[in-house]
Amino acid sequence: MSPKKDLIGIENLNADNISQYLDLADNFLEVLARPIPIVPSLRGKTILTLFFEASTRTQISFSIAAKRLSADVVNFSQSTSSVKKGETLLDTARNIEAMKVDGVVLRHSAPGAAQFLGQRIDAFVINAGDGTHEHPTQALLDLMTIRQHFGSFKKLNVLIIGDISHSRVARSNIFGLQALGARVAICAPPTLIPLEIKGLGVEVYYNLDEVIQDFDVVMALRIQLERQQSGLFPSVREYRTLYGLTKERVQKMKRKSIIMHPGPTNRGIEIDPDVADSEKSVILEQVKNGVALRMAVLFIHAGGKIE
Amino acid sequence: MSPKKDLIGIENLNADNISQYLDLADNFLEVLARPIPIVPSLRGKTILTLFFEASTRTQISFSIAAKRLSADVVNFSQSTSSVKKGETLLDTARNIEAMKVDGVVLRHSAPGAAQFLGQRIDAFVINAGDGTHEHPTQALLDLMTIRQHFGSFKKLNVLIIGDISHSRVARSNIFGLQALGARVAICAPPTLIPLEIKGLGVEVYYNLDEVIQDFDVVMALRIQLERQQSGLFPSVREYRTLYGLTKERVQKMKRKSIIMHPGPTNRGIEIDPDVADSEKSVILEQVKNGVALRMAVLFIHAGGKIE
Amino acid sequence: MSPKKDLIGIENLNADNISQYLDLADNFLEVLARPIPIVPSLRGKTILTLFFEASTRTQISFSIAAKRLSADVVNFSQSTSSVKKGETLLDTARNIEAMKVDGVVLRHSAPGAAQFLGQRIDAFVINAGDGTHEHPTQALLDLMTIRQHFGSFKKLNVLIIGDISHSRVARSNIFGLQALGARVAICAPPTLIPLEIKGLGVEVYYNLDEVIQDFDVVMALRIQLERQQSGLFPSVREYRTLYGLTKERVQKMKRKSIIMHPGPTNRGIEIDPDVADSEKSVILEQVKNGVALRMAVLFIHAGGKIE
Repeated sequence: MSPKKDLIGIENLNADNISQYLDLADNFLEVLARPIPIVPSLRGKTILTLFFEASTRTQISFSIAAKRLSADVVNFSQSTSSVKKGETLLDTARNIEAMKVDGVVLRHSAPGAAQFLGQRIDAFVINAGDGTHEHPTQALLDLMTIRQHFGSFKKLNVLIIGDISHSRVARSNIFGLQALGARVAICAPPTLIPLEIKGLGVEVYYNLDEVIQDFDVVMALRIQLERQQSGLFPSVREYRTLYGLTKERVQKMKRKSIIMHPGPTNRGIEIDPDVADSEKSVILEQVKNGVALRMAVLFIHAGGKIE
Repeated sequence: MSPKKDLIGIENLNADNISQYLDLADNFLEVLARPIPIVPSLRGKTILTLFFEASTRTQISFSIAAKRLSADVVNFSQSTSSVKKGETLLDTARNIEAMKVDGVVLRHSAPGAAQFLGQRIDAFVINAGDGTHEHPTQALLDLMTIRQHFGSFKKLNVLIIGDISHSRVARSNIFGLQALGARVAICAPPTLIPLEIKGLGVEVYYNLDEVIQDFDVVMALRIQLERQQSGLFPSVREYRTLYGLTKERVQKMKRKSIIMHPGPTNRGIEIDPDVADSEKSVILEQVKNGVALRMAVLFIHAGGKIE
Repeated sequence: MSPKKDLIGIENLNADNISQYLDLADNFLEVLARPIPIVPSLRGKTILTLFFEASTRTQISFSIAAKRLSADVVNFSQSTSSVKKGETLLDTARNIEAMKVDGVVLRHSAPGAAQFLGQRIDAFVINAGDGTHEHPTQALLDLMTIRQHFGSFKKLNVLIIGDISHSRVARSNIFGLQALGARVAICAPPTLIPLEIKGLGVEVYYNLDEVIQDFDVVMALRIQLERQQSGLFPSVREYRTLYGLTKERVQKMKRKSIIMHPGPTNRGIEIDPDVADSEKSVILEQVKNGVALRMAVLFIHAGGKIE
């Protein structure tokens, strides 16, 4: 099976597509354990990471992934960009194309930005987050982490807690988990659940304490503190009281269940510090898997050859 | 012929100097078409790109050019700079010198900054734009693009439209085109034409509609929207009406003529979107040539050896 | 002797520890003089420079040092960081750990930040300045420069002038010079001398003109102009009059004495331009030695092998 040129979202991937990324990522985990964790697969390829929203961890993760594959990496973030001068994404796209970059990792605040870019350049485009739309590599590394723990997605029960309305991480994970056959539920204040949620085929809960004991995977989303002013949002204290992963709540969870978070965490709000650091938490496995998964994504879309 | 240590401007170059850059850049275009577009010419050399004004495209272009030559590249832009702490360019220069960098690509808002730096360090300095003074690699890539289309500059008629007073791109192109024997004219509102223009030996026009049909190359400059407040500048609407490259105007141009723009374009102001994307437009060729031309410039000034 | 995992400060180093860094740095100076100044020692290692305070010169210096050792380097500075999003240093630390970076070069405004990070990750941590605490590589490169000039620290008289209260450079140098057996004195306005200075075992002077002729090494610290508002600080004019390294003062210094400054200098305040550029000044030797010294530090802490 040959992949599409770009990785824009999980919505249009099937189980085979997803498994291809995950299988290769598992292989790259072994590469990363070597004394010299570098393979020559993408020697001579140039990858541009173009971040119009700040994100230390995601940009570093992609950058390290590309270097582990021997690609040349050029990092750019908004603060040093001519976007300030009013350049459009389209102009940027054409310039990237003309400079013969092989692939672009794009983060942008506008939903659809990655697709827009991908349709206009020959270089492959990896969506590293486009507004509230999708963040496919985050979902893939989450799926990779879940598969490592449970082996399969059949009969797996996954609960996503938080601001579903604004979360590209939630959307991408819902698509991926459903494609792989898991049961997906969400739990959040009614104001943070989008109207179109019914169409996504997920169960909706409002009371975390009534349902947390039923799930194998509990994923807390990051609360965007800057949305507090909108009026849709409960106070931080109220949010923690009703939806925070506290020690008391976590004690009710299944014995073999795991806790996930895409990071960075707001410790003491959506997740308590001792929960984030507890045995159930796989947050750091997610980060570690992230480098291997992004190696797999870059490798596949760059048309790398297995040696 | 051995080049000067630095490339500060086009003003002091003759036709042979310019052709040397252009010939080598044409060769590097072939390198860029290879599956692995990298040559080992500058292995072990360190190039520092030091940008005190933001410019995504120029810094990426130089950065990719240096990597294609196997140089090590260190990118710095103002936002992460101790310039904030009041460090002078002179101190920066001396520190660069002491760190044994081989070459510096400098963008700075002060005319003369590149020359100032070049006179004080052993490393070669490439001017990537110094205020309203010069932007030599932009002019060289423009000349490269023109030569690809017309073969020669003899009897070639070139028209530059826009804010000549503040354009380092215009100045560098005027010097280069004249050195190579082209006829150069400018067209702009009287308030945007510098008093010293007579000394440059270019023809001056104010009415674009009367002259556009006479030229082989029509180059639109980028309008600096932030200069609108100065009072010297017509309104955006008025500017487009009188000097914008609209479809109607372009239809009057010669059959084999081309349209150039240094980018990023203000679409709908100095150039209409359908004109920027039309067959006459060579804007993306300019960008593509930019990487090859900057490879040639870095190669020559770093004293690279042909293998 | 095997070094500690991290280099947090000079306070806990003895003479042998320091000499090990300095001896290796002298060797690397020879590497830097080669036509291709690169050794393969750290091939396959990834070094992250993480700067939460801007510093062009220090970040470039570490970056070049790492590249000279063939390490992969990922540079991040605050402006592109999710620190803005409220991420804690602890979360950053855990993420770095999970991404399998080999070493981190950290600059942070909080005293103790480097130690905090080092205790929580397996990667080695090099402190590139933590608030008013320590800046060990600056002190080591200063010691390297002094040793090149005087051969030994026995009977050597060193005077440090300036804002001792807020200077990590002063603290690191005091520890290092004392460990190596030099006599250390400070000279500053009383308001800029910390109460705990007695415990450090240095001589304290307030009148520069009475003592400057007694010292072999005179090190001027950078005046932090932003501290002027605190009221503790004399005016710039008064500071220069009483403590500035003027031509007149420098003429009273010993014949073979040297003048040092960690840079960037405030020319005309703590040091006059003609003094900074005079024969006595070793400021640029400090910068040059900085790359070699940082190569030595990275090499030793990364467990590099001599070939």
